[in-house]
Amino acid sequence: MDEHKAEIFEECPIAEIQPIVHGKWAMVIIYFLSLGTLRFGELSRKIPAVTQANLTKELRTLERYGLVHREVYKEVPPRVEYSLTALGSKFLPVIEALKTFAWEYHEARQGE
Amino acid sequence: MDEHKAEIFEECPIAEIQPIVHGKWAMVIIYFLSLGTLRFGELSRKIPAVTQANLTKELRTLERYGLVHREVYKEVPPRVEYSLTALGSKFLPVIEALKTFAWEYHEARQGE
Repeated sequence: MDEHKAEIFEECPIAEIQPIVHGKWAMVIIYFLSLGTLRFGELSRKIPAVTQANLTKELRTLERYGLVHREVYKEVPPRVEYSLTALGSKFLPVIEALKTFAWEYHEARQGE
Repeated sequence: MDEHKAEIFEECPIAEIQPIVHGKWAMVIIYFLSLGTLRFGELSRKIPAVTQANLTKELRTLERYGLVHREVYKEVPPRVEYSLTALGSKFLPVIEALKTFAWEYHEARQGE
């Protein structure tokens, strides 16, 4: 699989980042974090369709790939905040392009 | 779930298109089709990491959402070609942004 990936990367630069954005809610998470730092509960309420377990899993993936930063404040009760890293914020042009496409898609499909 | 989607759409326009681009290879497929019409076998050889069954499945999804057009030529043996629709080509700015991010990600991670 990794060999395949290197092979594909020659021809398709997107293949390397495919595992990063593959998470069902990865791009939605990045979108909300692009608007500002959020606590876990806040993020969870913004995406009611995702379970807390899956949200945790997807946040861990984004953290592992260096797109999301997780900050734990040792308060009582402990406060955990998520934000985009410098690398994560480089993903924002993708989000902007996706937003534009989402509206175009919405309009095209409304007209059918 | 559909209610949830409508609810999310209010706040996050990306949520509506998430099922479209969620396929593991959807964006890689769109990338290659953006370079020109391809026969199934050609596309399959460009993405060796994906099985033919999964490639078929993902192409069907993209076709159902109106991003990909499937043309069957009644030859012997039958020829099947895939291309982007007008709506599909509106996705290209997303691909461009992803390519830019892929290179930035690659460089950031190489330097670690």
